[in-house]
Amino acid sequence: MSPRLDSIRIVLSRTTHPGNIGAAARAMKTMGLSRLHLVAPKHFPHIDATARASGAEDILESCRVSETLDEALEGASFRVAVTARHRDLSLEVYDSREAAQIALDEAQRGEVALVFGTEMSGLTTEEIGKCQIISTIPANPAYSSLNLASAVQIMAYELRMTLPIGKKSQGKLPELATFEEIEHFYQHLEETLVRIRFLDPNEPKRLMQRMRRLFARSRLEKTEVNILRGILRGLSEHHGNEIV
Amino acid sequence: MSPRLDSIRIVLSRTTHPGNIGAAARAMKTMGLSRLHLVAPKHFPHIDATARASGAEDILESCRVSETLDEALEGASFRVAVTARHRDLSLEVYDSREAAQIALDEAQRGEVALVFGTEMSGLTTEEIGKCQIISTIPANPAYSSLNLASAVQIMAYELRMTLPIGKKSQGKLPELATFEEIEHFYQHLEETLVRIRFLDPNEPKRLMQRMRRLFARSRLEKTEVNILRGILRGLSEHHGNEIV
Repeated sequence: MSPRLDSIRIVLSRTTHPGNIGAAARAMKTMGLSRLHLVAPKHFPHIDATARASGAEDILESCRVSETLDEALEGASFRVAVTARHRDLSLEVYDSREAAQIALDEAQRGEVALVFGTEMSGLTTEEIGKCQIISTIPANPAYSSLNLASAVQIMAYELRMTLPIGKKSQGKLPELATFEEIEHFYQHLEETLVRIRFLDPNEPKRLMQRMRRLFARSRLEKTEVNILRGILRGLSEHHGNEIV
Repeated sequence: MSPRLDSIRIVLSRTTHPGNIGAAARAMKTMGLSRLHLVAPKHFPHIDATARASGAEDILESCRVSETLDEALEGASFRVAVTARHRDLSLEVYDSREAAQIALDEAQRGEVALVFGTEMSGLTTEEIGKCQIISTIPANPAYSSLNLASAVQIMAYELRMTLPIGKKSQGKLPELATFEEIEHFYQHLEETLVRIRFLDPNEPKRLMQRMRRLFARSRLEKTEVNILRGILRGLSEHHGNEIV
Protein backbone atom coordinates (compact mmCIF):
# COMPACT_ATOMS: atom_id res chain seq x y z
CA MET A 1 0.00 0.00 0.00
CA SER A 2 1.11 3.50 -0.68
CA PRO A 3 0.87 6.09 2.10
CA ARG A 4 -0.42 8.51 -0.48
CA LEU A 5 -3.27 6.24 -1.53
CA ASP A 6 -4.08 5.78 2.14
CA SER A 7 -4.75 9.50 2.37
CA ILE A 8 -7.35 9.36 -0.38
CA ARG A 9 -10.98 8.53 0.35
CA ILE A 10 -13.73 7.75 -2.11
CA VAL A 11 -17.06 9.39 -1.23
CA LEU A 12 -20.22 8.06 -2.85
CA SER A 13 -23.16 10.37 -2.36
CA ARG A 14 -26.73 9.03 -2.28
CA THR A 15 -26.00 5.88 -4.27
CA THR A 16 -29.19 4.19 -5.49
CA HIS A 17 -28.03 0.67 -6.37
CA PRO A 18 -26.15 -1.24 -3.66
CA GLY A 19 -24.52 -3.37 -6.37
CA ASN A 20 -22.63 -0.27 -7.45
CA ILE A 21 -21.30 0.21 -3.92
CA GLY A 22 -19.88 -3.31 -3.95
CA ALA A 23 -18.44 -2.87 -7.43
CA ALA A 24 -16.89 0.45 -6.39
CA ALA A 25 -15.26 -1.23 -3.37
CA ARG A 26 -13.79 -3.87 -5.66
CA ALA A 27 -12.60 -1.23 -8.12
CA MET A 28 -10.92 0.66 -5.26
CA LYS A 29 -9.19 -2.39 -3.86
CA THR A 30 -7.78 -3.50 -7.22
CA MET A 31 -5.96 -0.18 -7.40
CA GLY A 32 -4.87 -0.03 -3.77
CA LEU A 33 -7.45 2.38 -2.34
CA SER A 34 -9.17 1.36 0.89
CA ARG A 35 -11.16 4.21 2.37
CA LEU A 36 -14.82 4.38 1.38
CA HIS A 37 -17.39 6.85 2.70
CA LEU A 38 -21.06 6.50 1.85
CA VAL A 39 -23.44 9.42 2.15
CA ALA A 40 -27.07 8.40 2.69
CA PRO A 41 -26.99 5.27 0.54
CA LYS A 42 -30.45 4.08 -0.49
CA HIS A 43 -29.72 0.49 0.60
CA PHE A 44 -26.72 -0.49 2.68
CA PRO A 45 -25.63 -3.00 3.83
CA HIS A 46 -27.18 -5.10 1.11
CA ILE A 47 -26.62 -8.53 -0.37
CA ASP A 48 -25.98 -7.02 -3.82
CA ALA A 49 -23.19 -4.87 -2.45
CA THR A 50 -21.52 -7.88 -0.85
CA ALA A 51 -21.93 -10.00 -3.97
CA ARG A 52 -20.36 -7.44 -6.28
CA ALA A 53 -17.52 -6.66 -3.85
CA SER A 54 -16.17 -10.15 -4.54
CA GLY A 55 -13.08 -10.20 -2.34
CA ALA A 56 -13.26 -6.55 -1.30
CA GLU A 57 -15.74 -7.09 1.52
CA ASP A 58 -13.17 -5.69 3.95
CA ILE A 59 -13.65 -2.29 2.33
CA LEU A 60 -17.41 -2.49 2.79
CA GLU A 61 -16.96 -3.56 6.41
CA SER A 62 -14.66 -0.69 7.24
CA CYS A 63 -16.55 1.94 5.26
CA ARG A 64 -18.14 4.92 6.98
CA VAL A 65 -21.74 5.84 6.47
CA SER A 66 -23.05 9.31 7.16
CA GLU A 67 -26.20 11.27 6.57
CA THR A 68 -24.56 14.33 5.08
CA LEU A 69 -21.75 15.06 2.66
CA ASP A 70 -20.23 17.44 5.19
CA GLU A 71 -19.63 14.57 7.59
CA ALA A 72 -18.02 12.51 4.85
CA LEU A 73 -15.70 15.37 3.97
CA GLU A 74 -14.51 15.98 7.52
CA GLY A 75 -10.76 16.32 7.64
CA ALA A 76 -10.39 16.33 3.88
CA SER A 77 -8.22 19.27 2.97
CA PHE A 78 -8.59 18.73 -0.76
CA ARG A 79 -11.82 17.68 -2.45
CA VAL A 80 -12.39 16.65 -6.05
CA ALA A 81 -15.87 16.53 -7.60
CA VAL A 82 -16.01 13.79 -10.23
CA THR A 83 -18.71 14.64 -12.70
CA ALA A 84 -19.57 14.36 -16.35
CA ARG A 85 -21.25 17.71 -16.50
CA HIS A 86 -19.60 21.07 -16.54
CA ARG A 87 -21.71 23.46 -14.65
CA ASP A 88 -21.78 27.15 -14.69
CA LEU A 89 -19.50 27.30 -11.71
CA SER A 90 -16.17 28.83 -11.20
CA LEU A 91 -14.31 25.66 -10.23
CA GLU A 92 -11.36 24.65 -12.33
CA VAL A 93 -12.06 21.66 -14.56
CA TYR A 94 -9.42 18.98 -15.18
CA ASP A 95 -9.61 15.70 -17.01
CA SER A 96 -9.27 12.49 -14.99
CA ARG A 97 -5.54 12.18 -15.64
CA GLU A 98 -4.69 15.71 -14.61
CA ALA A 99 -7.01 15.51 -11.62
CA ALA A 100 -5.35 12.29 -10.42
CA GLN A 101 -1.97 13.99 -10.55
CA ILE A 102 -3.25 16.96 -8.57
CA ALA A 103 -4.98 14.71 -6.03
CA LEU A 104 -1.81 12.70 -5.45
CA ASP A 105 0.22 15.85 -5.04
CA GLU A 106 -2.26 17.11 -2.48
CA ALA A 107 -2.27 13.74 -0.71
CA GLN A 108 1.34 14.36 0.25
CA ARG A 109 0.25 17.10 2.56
CA GLY A 110 -3.26 16.25 3.64
CA GLU A 111 -6.39 14.19 3.28
CA VAL A 112 -8.03 14.04 -0.14
CA ALA A 113 -11.60 13.11 -1.08
CA LEU A 114 -12.91 12.13 -4.51
CA VAL A 115 -16.66 12.71 -4.52
CA PHE A 116 -19.11 10.88 -6.80
CA GLY A 117 -22.85 11.65 -7.13
CA THR A 118 -25.88 9.50 -7.83
CA GLU A 119 -26.25 7.13 -10.76
CA MET A 120 -28.98 9.15 -12.41
CA SER A 121 -28.06 12.75 -11.89
CA GLY A 122 -24.54 12.95 -10.54
CA LEU A 123 -23.55 15.61 -8.04
CA THR A 124 -25.75 18.57 -7.23
CA THR A 125 -24.50 22.11 -7.61
CA GLU A 126 -24.40 22.36 -3.85
CA GLU A 127 -22.27 19.24 -3.52
CA ILE A 128 -19.88 20.42 -6.21
CA GLY A 129 -19.62 23.70 -4.34
CA LYS A 130 -17.98 21.88 -1.44
CA CYS A 131 -15.10 20.76 -3.65
CA GLN A 132 -12.07 22.60 -5.00
CA ILE A 133 -11.72 21.18 -8.49
CA ILE A 134 -13.85 19.24 -10.94
CA SER A 135 -12.56 16.07 -12.57
CA THR A 136 -14.28 14.97 -15.76
CA ILE A 137 -13.72 11.63 -17.42
CA PRO A 138 -13.42 12.06 -21.19
CA ALA A 139 -16.17 10.06 -22.90
CA ASN A 140 -18.13 9.56 -26.09
CA PRO A 141 -20.17 12.76 -26.50
CA ALA A 142 -23.00 10.69 -27.97
CA TYR A 143 -23.15 8.42 -24.92
CA SER A 144 -21.28 9.51 -21.84
CA SER A 145 -23.29 7.50 -19.36
CA LEU A 146 -20.50 5.91 -17.40
CA ASN A 147 -21.53 3.45 -14.72
CA LEU A 148 -20.78 4.77 -11.21
CA ALA A 149 -18.38 1.93 -10.34
CA SER A 150 -16.69 2.37 -13.73
CA ALA A 151 -16.07 6.02 -12.94
CA VAL A 152 -14.57 5.01 -9.59
CA GLN A 153 -12.50 2.38 -11.40
CA ILE A 154 -11.08 4.90 -13.85
CA MET A 155 -10.19 7.46 -11.18
CA ALA A 156 -8.62 4.75 -8.99
CA TYR A 157 -6.69 3.45 -11.99
CA GLU A 158 -5.42 6.93 -12.83
CA LEU A 159 -4.28 7.41 -9.25
CA ARG A 160 -2.37 4.15 -9.38
CA MET A 161 -0.86 4.92 -12.79
CA THR A 162 0.29 8.27 -11.46
CA LEU A 163 1.95 6.78 -8.39
CA PRO A 164 5.69 6.78 -8.82
CA ILE A 165 5.73 3.13 -7.71
CA GLY A 166 2.75 2.26 -9.87
CA LYS A 167 4.99 2.15 -12.90
CA LYS A 168 5.40 -1.24 -14.43
CA SER A 169 8.44 -3.31 -13.84
CA GLN A 170 9.30 -5.58 -16.74
CA GLY A 171 11.02 -8.11 -14.50
CA LYS A 172 14.04 -9.94 -15.78
CA LEU A 173 14.29 -9.67 -19.54
CA PRO A 174 15.74 -12.44 -21.69
CA GLU A 175 19.24 -11.79 -22.90
CA LEU A 176 19.47 -10.37 -26.41
CA ALA A 177 21.70 -11.90 -29.03
CA THR A 178 24.92 -10.03 -29.72
CA PHE A 179 25.71 -8.37 -33.00
CA GLU A 180 28.11 -11.18 -33.97
CA GLU A 181 25.60 -13.89 -33.15
CA ILE A 182 23.02 -12.24 -35.32
CA GLU A 183 25.44 -11.71 -38.19
CA HIS A 184 26.41 -15.38 -38.07
CA PHE A 185 22.76 -16.28 -38.21
CA TYR A 186 22.19 -14.11 -41.30
CA GLN A 187 25.20 -15.68 -42.97
CA HIS A 188 23.95 -19.16 -42.13
CA LEU A 189 20.47 -18.25 -43.39
CA GLU A 190 21.86 -16.88 -46.65
CA GLU A 191 23.92 -20.00 -47.29
CA THR A 192 20.90 -22.15 -46.68
CA LEU A 193 18.68 -20.09 -48.97
CA VAL A 194 21.27 -20.41 -51.71
CA ARG A 195 21.49 -24.14 -51.13
CA ILE A 196 17.79 -24.67 -51.48
CA ARG A 197 17.95 -22.37 -54.53
CA PHE A 198 15.50 -19.91 -53.08
CA LEU A 199 18.18 -17.26 -53.34
CA ASP A 200 20.17 -16.82 -56.53
CA PRO A 201 23.56 -15.43 -55.50
CA ASN A 202 23.88 -13.83 -58.94
CA GLU A 203 20.64 -12.00 -58.56
CA PRO A 204 20.03 -11.71 -54.85
CA LYS A 205 17.67 -8.76 -55.13
CA ARG A 206 16.80 -7.57 -51.68
CA LEU A 207 15.87 -10.83 -50.05
CA MET A 208 18.49 -10.75 -47.31
CA GLN A 209 17.78 -7.11 -46.69
CA ARG A 210 14.15 -7.98 -46.16
CA MET A 211 15.04 -10.82 -43.81
CA ARG A 212 17.28 -8.49 -41.83
CA ARG A 213 14.50 -5.97 -41.53
CA LEU A 214 12.04 -8.61 -40.33
CA PHE A 215 14.34 -10.05 -37.67
CA ALA A 216 15.60 -6.64 -36.63
CA ARG A 217 12.07 -5.79 -35.58
CA SER A 218 12.00 -8.90 -33.38
CA ARG A 219 15.09 -7.96 -31.41
CA LEU A 220 16.28 -11.56 -31.39
CA GLU A 221 17.18 -13.15 -28.11
CA LYS A 222 20.20 -15.42 -27.63
CA THR A 223 18.07 -18.54 -27.26
CA GLU A 224 16.08 -17.70 -30.36
CA VAL A 225 19.18 -17.32 -32.51
CA ASN A 226 20.30 -20.70 -31.23
CA ILE A 227 16.99 -22.28 -32.18
CA LEU A 228 16.97 -20.66 -35.61
CA ARG A 229 20.50 -21.80 -36.29
CA GLY A 230 19.56 -25.23 -34.99
CA ILE A 231 16.83 -25.39 -37.61
CA LEU A 232 19.22 -24.35 -40.36
CA ARG A 233 21.75 -26.89 -39.14
CA GLY A 234 19.06 -29.55 -38.92
CA LEU A 235 18.28 -28.90 -42.56
CA SER A 236 21.87 -29.31 -43.65
CA GLU A 237 22.79 -32.29 -41.50
CA HIS A 238 19.68 -34.20 -42.18
CA HIS A 239 19.64 -33.67 -45.90
CA GLY A 240 23.15 -32.51 -46.51
CA ASN A 241 23.97 -35.09 -49.11
CA GLU A 242 20.80 -34.70 -51.08
CA ILE A 243 20.85 -30.95 -50.97
CA VAL A 244 24.45 -30.32 -51.89
CA MET B 1 -16.81 8.29 -33.89
CA SER B 2 -13.20 7.94 -34.75
CA PRO B 3 -12.28 5.80 -37.75
CA ARG B 4 -9.47 4.33 -35.67
CA LEU B 5 -11.78 3.24 -32.86
CA ASP B 6 -13.99 1.68 -35.53
CA SER B 7 -11.11 -0.62 -36.49
CA ILE B 8 -10.83 -1.96 -32.98
CA ARG B 9 -12.90 -4.89 -31.80
CA ILE B 10 -13.33 -6.18 -28.27
CA VAL B 11 -13.26 -9.97 -28.05
CA LEU B 12 -14.62 -11.62 -24.90
CA SER B 13 -13.70 -15.28 -24.71
CA ARG B 14 -15.93 -17.74 -22.85
CA THR B 15 -17.55 -15.18 -20.57
CA THR B 16 -19.38 -16.80 -17.67
CA HIS B 17 -21.67 -14.03 -16.42
CA PRO B 18 -23.94 -12.37 -18.99
CA GLY B 19 -24.10 -9.27 -16.76
CA ASN B 20 -20.44 -8.69 -17.54
CA ILE B 21 -21.17 -8.78 -21.27
CA GLY B 22 -23.75 -6.02 -20.87
CA ALA B 23 -21.46 -3.98 -18.63
CA ALA B 24 -18.62 -4.41 -21.14
CA ALA B 25 -20.88 -3.15 -23.94
CA ARG B 26 -21.72 -0.08 -21.89
CA ALA B 27 -18.05 0.48 -21.05
CA MET B 28 -17.20 0.28 -24.75
CA LYS B 29 -19.89 2.68 -25.83
CA THR B 30 -18.98 5.34 -23.27
CA MET B 31 -15.54 5.48 -24.86
CA GLY B 32 -16.67 5.28 -28.49
CA LEU B 33 -15.98 1.62 -29.26
CA SER B 34 -18.73 -0.33 -30.98
CA ARG B 35 -17.52 -3.71 -32.20
CA LEU B 36 -18.02 -6.61 -29.81
CA HIS B 37 -17.22 -10.28 -30.54
CA LEU B 38 -18.23 -13.01 -28.11
CA VAL B 39 -16.56 -16.40 -28.17
CA ALA B 40 -18.71 -19.20 -26.77
CA PRO B 41 -20.41 -17.13 -24.06
CA LYS B 42 -22.01 -19.27 -21.36
CA HIS B 43 -25.33 -17.39 -21.58
CA PHE B 44 -26.19 -14.99 -24.37
CA PRO B 45 -28.51 -13.31 -25.12
CA HIS B 46 -29.59 -12.94 -21.51
CA ILE B 47 -31.73 -10.54 -19.51
CA ASP B 48 -28.74 -9.65 -17.26
CA ALA B 49 -26.69 -8.60 -20.27
CA THR B 50 -29.47 -6.33 -21.50
CA ALA B 51 -30.04 -4.87 -18.04
CA ARG B 52 -26.40 -3.96 -17.48
CA ALA B 53 -25.96 -2.58 -21.02
CA SER B 54 -28.25 0.28 -20.01
CA GLY B 55 -28.33 2.32 -23.21
CA ALA B 56 -25.72 0.27 -25.07
CA GLU B 57 -28.13 -2.41 -26.26
CA ASP B 58 -27.23 -1.54 -29.86
CA ILE B 59 -23.77 -2.97 -29.23
CA LEU B 60 -25.24 -6.22 -27.93
CA GLU B 61 -27.58 -6.40 -30.90
CA SER B 62 -24.81 -5.95 -33.44
CA CYS B 63 -22.27 -8.13 -31.65
CA ARG B 64 -20.92 -11.27 -33.28
CA VAL B 65 -20.97 -14.62 -31.56
CA SER B 66 -18.70 -17.47 -32.60
CA GLU B 67 -17.69 -20.84 -31.27
CA THR B 68 -13.96 -20.35 -31.59
CA LEU B 69 -11.47 -17.59 -30.94
CA ASP B 70 -10.08 -18.09 -34.44
CA GLU B 71 -13.38 -16.99 -35.94
CA ALA B 72 -13.49 -13.92 -33.71
CA LEU B 73 -9.97 -12.98 -34.80
CA GLU B 74 -10.60 -13.31 -38.52
CA GLY B 75 -9.20 -10.33 -40.37
CA ALA B 76 -7.53 -8.91 -37.27
CA SER B 77 -3.96 -8.11 -38.22
CA PHE B 78 -2.99 -7.01 -34.72
CA ARG B 79 -4.09 -8.80 -31.58
CA VAL B 80 -3.62 -7.79 -27.97
CA ALA B 81 -4.07 -10.24 -25.10
CA VAL B 82 -5.32 -8.39 -22.03
CA THR B 83 -4.29 -10.39 -19.01
CA ALA B 84 -3.17 -10.01 -15.42
CA ARG B 85 -0.71 -12.85 -15.51
CA HIS B 86 2.76 -12.86 -16.93
CA ARG B 87 3.52 -16.28 -18.17
CA ASP B 88 6.79 -18.00 -18.50
CA LEU B 89 6.94 -17.83 -22.24
CA SER B 90 5.14 -14.64 -22.63
CA LEU B 91 4.92 -12.18 -25.47
CA GLU B 92 6.16 -8.68 -25.05
CA VAL B 93 4.35 -7.15 -22.10
CA TYR B 94 3.11 -3.57 -22.07
CA ASP B 95 1.04 -1.77 -19.52
CA SER B 96 -2.44 -0.69 -20.52
CA ARG B 97 -1.33 2.81 -21.47
CA GLU B 98 1.49 1.69 -23.73
CA ALA B 99 -0.65 -1.07 -25.21
CA ALA B 100 -3.42 1.41 -26.06
CA GLN B 101 -0.91 3.56 -27.90
CA ILE B 102 0.41 0.60 -29.86
CA ALA B 103 -3.11 -0.63 -30.65
CA LEU B 104 -4.15 2.78 -31.95
CA ASP B 105 -1.03 3.00 -34.10
CA GLU B 106 -1.77 -0.43 -35.55
CA ALA B 107 -5.40 0.52 -36.14
CA GLN B 108 -4.17 2.98 -38.74
CA ARG B 109 -3.22 0.15 -41.02
CA GLY B 110 -5.43 -2.77 -40.12
CA GLU B 111 -7.98 -4.35 -37.87
CA VAL B 112 -7.12 -4.64 -34.19
CA ALA B 113 -8.55 -7.01 -31.58
CA LEU B 114 -8.30 -6.69 -27.80
CA VAL B 115 -8.88 -10.13 -26.33
CA PHE B 116 -10.20 -10.77 -22.80
CA GLY B 117 -10.48 -14.18 -21.13
CA THR B 118 -12.89 -15.63 -18.61
CA GLU B 119 -13.74 -14.07 -15.26
CA MET B 120 -12.10 -16.82 -13.24
CA SER B 121 -8.99 -17.76 -15.11
CA GLY B 122 -8.38 -15.22 -17.86
CA LEU B 123 -6.88 -16.25 -21.17
CA THR B 124 -5.32 -19.65 -21.78
CA THR B 125 -1.76 -20.00 -23.01
CA GLU B 126 -3.15 -21.11 -26.35
CA GLU B 127 -5.34 -18.02 -26.63
CA ILE B 128 -2.46 -15.75 -25.72
CA GLY B 129 -0.38 -17.50 -28.37
CA LYS B 130 -2.72 -16.13 -31.02
CA CYS B 131 -1.89 -12.56 -30.01
CA GLN B 132 1.15 -10.40 -30.62
CA ILE B 133 1.49 -8.46 -27.39
CA ILE B 134 0.22 -8.71 -23.84
CA SER B 135 -1.40 -5.76 -22.15
CA THR B 136 -1.48 -5.81 -18.37
CA ILE B 137 -3.43 -3.38 -16.26
CA PRO B 138 -1.34 -2.24 -13.30
CA ALA B 139 -3.10 -3.25 -10.10
CA ASN B 140 -2.71 -3.81 -6.38
CA PRO B 141 -0.40 -6.82 -6.06
CA ALA B 142 -2.35 -7.92 -2.98
CA TYR B 143 -5.66 -7.92 -4.86
CA SER B 144 -5.49 -7.65 -8.62
CA SER B 145 -8.88 -9.21 -9.30
CA LEU B 146 -10.27 -6.68 -11.74
CA ASN B 147 -13.84 -7.27 -12.87
CA LEU B 148 -14.00 -8.20 -16.58
CA ALA B 149 -16.09 -5.17 -17.55
CA SER B 150 -13.77 -2.95 -15.52
CA ALA B 151 -10.82 -4.24 -17.49
CA VAL B 152 -12.70 -3.47 -20.72
CA GLN B 153 -13.54 -0.04 -19.32
CA ILE B 154 -9.93 0.77 -18.55
CA MET B 155 -8.64 -0.36 -21.94
CA ALA B 156 -11.42 1.53 -23.73
CA TYR B 157 -10.69 4.62 -21.64
CA GLU B 158 -7.00 4.43 -22.44
CA LEU B 159 -7.79 4.14 -26.15
CA ARG B 160 -9.94 7.23 -25.95
CA MET B 161 -7.36 9.16 -23.93
CA THR B 162 -4.72 8.20 -26.48
CA LEU B 163 -6.74 9.30 -29.51
CA PRO B 164 -4.70 11.95 -31.20
CA ILE B 165 -6.32 15.26 -31.70
CA GLY B 166 -3.67 16.71 -33.92
CA LYS B 167 -0.88 14.17 -33.97
CA LYS B 168 0.96 13.60 -37.21
CA SER B 169 0.15 10.57 -39.25
CA GLN B 170 2.89 8.02 -39.74
CA GLY B 171 2.64 8.03 -43.52
CA LYS B 172 1.78 4.91 -45.44
CA LEU B 173 2.82 1.81 -43.56
CA PRO B 174 3.25 -1.62 -45.13
CA GLU B 175 0.18 -3.79 -44.81
CA LEU B 176 0.27 -6.29 -41.96
CA ALA B 177 -0.52 -9.95 -42.48
CA THR B 178 -3.92 -11.01 -41.23
CA PHE B 179 -4.50 -13.51 -38.46
CA GLU B 180 -5.37 -16.26 -40.96
CA GLU B 181 -2.26 -15.65 -43.05
CA ILE B 182 -0.08 -15.87 -40.00
CA GLU B 183 -1.78 -19.00 -38.70
CA HIS B 184 -1.27 -20.67 -42.09
CA PHE B 185 2.38 -19.72 -41.94
CA TYR B 186 2.78 -21.26 -38.46
CA GLN B 187 1.08 -24.41 -39.67
CA HIS B 188 3.35 -24.56 -42.71
CA LEU B 189 6.41 -23.95 -40.52
CA GLU B 190 5.40 -26.65 -38.09
CA GLU B 191 4.89 -29.19 -40.88
CA THR B 192 8.29 -28.33 -42.28
CA LEU B 193 10.02 -28.62 -38.91
CA VAL B 194 8.43 -32.04 -38.43
CA ARG B 195 9.55 -33.08 -41.89
CA ILE B 196 13.15 -32.17 -41.30
CA ARG B 197 12.82 -33.90 -37.93
CA PHE B 198 13.73 -30.81 -36.00
CA LEU B 199 10.38 -31.02 -34.27
CA ASP B 200 9.20 -34.30 -32.80
CA PRO B 201 5.40 -34.22 -32.94
CA ASN B 202 5.30 -36.61 -29.99
CA GLU B 203 7.43 -34.33 -27.89
CA PRO B 204 6.96 -30.86 -29.32
CA LYS B 205 8.02 -29.10 -26.14
CA ARG B 206 7.53 -25.42 -26.62
CA LEU B 207 9.21 -24.92 -29.95
CA MET B 208 6.17 -23.58 -31.81
CA GLN B 209 5.28 -21.38 -28.87
CA ARG B 210 8.76 -19.90 -29.08
CA MET B 211 8.46 -19.38 -32.81
CA ARG B 212 5.12 -17.65 -32.31
CA ARG B 213 6.62 -15.39 -29.74
CA LEU B 214 9.54 -14.47 -31.97
CA PHE B 215 7.40 -13.65 -35.00
CA ALA B 216 4.74 -11.95 -32.89
CA ARG B 217 7.34 -9.37 -31.95
CA SER B 218 8.05 -8.73 -35.64
CA ARG B 219 4.43 -7.89 -36.51
CA LEU B 220 4.79 -9.69 -39.83
CA GLU B 221 3.82 -7.86 -42.97
CA LYS B 222 1.89 -9.48 -45.79
CA THR B 223 4.92 -9.55 -48.11
CA GLU B 224 7.08 -11.08 -45.42
CA VAL B 225 4.67 -13.92 -44.77
CA ASN B 226 4.67 -14.56 -48.50
CA ILE B 227 8.46 -14.71 -48.58
CA LEU B 228 8.65 -16.97 -45.52
CA ARG B 229 6.07 -19.33 -46.97
CA GLY B 230 7.94 -19.19 -50.27
CA ILE B 231 11.05 -20.39 -48.47
CA LEU B 232 9.15 -23.24 -46.81
CA ARG B 233 7.57 -24.16 -50.14
CA GLY B 234 10.97 -23.94 -51.83
CA LEU B 235 12.29 -26.43 -49.32
CA SER B 236 9.51 -28.89 -49.93
CA GLU B 237 9.30 -28.57 -53.68
CA HIS B 238 12.99 -28.67 -54.26
CA HIS B 239 13.76 -31.52 -51.98
CA GLY B 240 10.37 -32.97 -51.45
CA ASN B 241 11.23 -36.46 -52.51
CA GLU B 242 14.45 -36.73 -50.58
CA ILE B 243 12.99 -35.21 -47.47
CA VAL B 244 9.86 -37.31 -47.20
